[in-house]
Amino acid sequence: MVQEEIRRLNVGTLLRHVHLGGSVSRAALAERMRLNRSTIMALTAELTAAGLVREELPADTGRAGRPSLVVRPESDRVYVLAFDVAVDRLVAARVTLGGITLDRREAVRPRAGADLDRVVEVLARFGRRLHRAAPPASVCVGVGASYCGMIRPGDGMVRFGPDMGWVDQAFGSELGRRLGLGLPVSVGNEAHLGALAEQQRGAGVGFQNLIYLHGDVGVGGGIIVGGKLLDGDGGYGCELGHMVVNPYNGRPCGCGSHGCLEAEVGERALLDAARRPAELSGRDAVRAVVDDAERGDPVAQDALRHVGDWLGIGVANLINLFNPGIVIFGGMLREMYPGAAPQVRARIASNVLPVARERVRLRTSALGDDATLVGAAELGFSELLANPLDVLTRTAP
Amino acid sequence: MVQEEIRRLNVGTLLRHVHLGGSVSRAALAERMRLNRSTIMALTAELTAAGLVREELPADTGRAGRPSLVVRPESDRVYVLAFDVAVDRLVAARVTLGGITLDRREAVRPRAGADLDRVVEVLARFGRRLHRAAPPASVCVGVGASYCGMIRPGDGMVRFGPDMGWVDQAFGSELGRRLGLGLPVSVGNEAHLGALAEQQRGAGVGFQNLIYLHGDVGVGGGIIVGGKLLDGDGGYGCELGHMVVNPYNGRPCGCGSHGCLEAEVGERALLDAARRPAELSGRDAVRAVVDDAERGDPVAQDALRHVGDWLGIGVANLINLFNPGIVIFGGMLREMYPGAAPQVRARIASNVLPVARERVRLRTSALGDDATLVGAAELGFSELLANPLDVLTRTAP
Repeated sequence: MVQEEIRRLNVGTLLRHVHLGGSVSRAALAERMRLNRSTIMALTAELTAAGLVREELPADTGRAGRPSLVVRPESDRVYVLAFDVAVDRLVAARVTLGGITLDRREAVRPRAGADLDRVVEVLARFGRRLHRAAPPASVCVGVGASYCGMIRPGDGMVRFGPDMGWVDQAFGSELGRRLGLGLPVSVGNEAHLGALAEQQRGAGVGFQNLIYLHGDVGVGGGIIVGGKLLDGDGGYGCELGHMVVNPYNGRPCGCGSHGCLEAEVGERALLDAARRPAELSGRDAVRAVVDDAERGDPVAQDALRHVGDWLGIGVANLINLFNPGIVIFGGMLREMYPGAAPQVRARIASNVLPVARERVRLRTSALGDDATLVGAAELGFSELLANPLDVLTRTAP
Repeated sequence: MVQEEIRRLNVGTLLRHVHLGGSVSRAALAERMRLNRSTIMALTAELTAAGLVREELPADTGRAGRPSLVVRPESDRVYVLAFDVAVDRLVAARVTLGGITLDRREAVRPRAGADLDRVVEVLARFGRRLHRAAPPASVCVGVGASYCGMIRPGDGMVRFGPDMGWVDQAFGSELGRRLGLGLPVSVGNEAHLGALAEQQRGAGVGFQNLIYLHGDVGVGGGIIVGGKLLDGDGGYGCELGHMVVNPYNGRPCGCGSHGCLEAEVGERALLDAARRPAELSGRDAVRAVVDDAERGDPVAQDALRHVGDWLGIGVANLINLFNPGIVIFGGMLREMYPGAAPQVRARIASNVLPVARERVRLRTSALGDDATLVGAAELGFSELLANPLDVLTRTAP
């Protein structure tokens, strides 16, 4: 590793602290980065000159003596566009350095198949409007998108989008072309991005080993191992929804197999267990089961217990494999989990080796339905954070 | 990151290349480490002065011009002691920098319970003899041990050793005390160490995402994610043997649960499926089933197919979760796998999402029964490789 790489690494790390912390004193930065104050000053000066941060006196600390200057992100000036293609909606947002969503557009997405052209058209229109509405001196440093399917990391190709029947659709490059901003679009799987978002700004802050389960029609997963998203050789890891838990009596799964976790705990499994008509679907239908169970309806309570047992088997397997500090339930599972928690805890107690479950926490998503959008924004910022000075030079207004 | 850390990192990285490569030219080191030749020369000079490497002219290259000097590990001078507590044997070895096993001792371990005192006594006696037999000018830089159970990484405490019924036994510190070399003993789980060994010196060289399944009485796992061993929050991850694959009709497992992967594919499952008497056990009994199947015995063939189907379900789940480049079958599974491969491949084809299985390879262990011992030696070298100059100063003869 050479000197220039270290400087770049340090500049990026400092900007990341400020981006995630919002406002961090020079003293705190020196401590967290294990660097002396003069190095922090030099790094901050570079980022200030690039228009990425500014320094100011903190609000009155009530202490005597000279206060340490705080470093803030230039939230008025630097932003990304973030997109979310979820099972039931299309969202676009302008998100600042520092993570504030300043503006957003949203459309309902019909569940029936929608082709690439139609989806990209809606998102690109939203994106162009958000970009035009941004203040004149501001600069868009990246574009991130979340998609409910398997994504090739390099170019945002949707390899498999079961929900809309997409196979090998050039989503990322097509959205980039139609936005016309001259910026590439980074695309990630929604559950991967939800996991990153929860770790950076949600229920998983401070955890290095984290499992995020994202329920909608299916069940996706984002798994963080040693502080980094597990992506595997091609970027297609974390498919915990297709872990088979019920191989011989399992419900059929959209993937063609039987007894996958998502077949046993997804939306359809819950609605069938609650004896709802086959034509009912969607988040509202799930909510109705949860509400009925809370009101004491025994059929709905049984349905949650039944699905909760399968969920527990899946979660127990994951804890044995990953020894995580926290398991987070997001998407539809956020609503379902509280009613299923006793079964999940019972399965963990019976199926997980004691030393591997000593300290694990179970939580619902703190960011809720915005977890994936927040993750998309973070993906949009990732190149800037890796290489702040180069990226800003390229994208200067 | 500061200048001193980088130098330490670079010195360690260079020594690791030489340790794993055996003999590496300066030119190759410069290319692999992306450093210029003068930096490589300076780093090599430090390691040479410390007695860790030496430089020499390569064997005649047949080319004109001045050949690049090759850097070799000081294998005659620098070594570790490596120990392996496996289900059926106790092994100790003296392994050189560069990875050559120069001397080893081995004892049969009775399957019935053995207490800490007895196990440590045998290993410490072996270790002291190996140490005394080493050349006078040589130096022992570390001690690594592999144990078939769940290990607390910090101090080598056996948290759970199902095989011998150990709970919270201070194996690492006790072995260190009885060896009397003034060196701490690093202890790792056998399958974790098998995975590292296969990645560094076996079937998994070059793979960044690797799953190693180690079968004996049970089934352990070592999983490498992005080049690093998955350890989780406490070091207790990778317990793939306790992934439940058959929750409602499963065989009882030693852990107290039912239908764990190891209950369905471990030694007892195979022997029962092959209708062998309950008093038979051990590697020879497994080999006899495999041999009978190869000779055409239909009962033995059925048994391998039956167990192979469960193994396939487990491996398919792991591929969906980890999108690995390679899956390696070690221990008893090394012998069982060839006869079960058709079932494993069929399950992968039916249960794994196509994009996640496009490029995965299935292989048997290249290091065989020594995988865990090789891993223990690498663990013994890990502190030296992280911090070569400091460690050598402390342990100088």
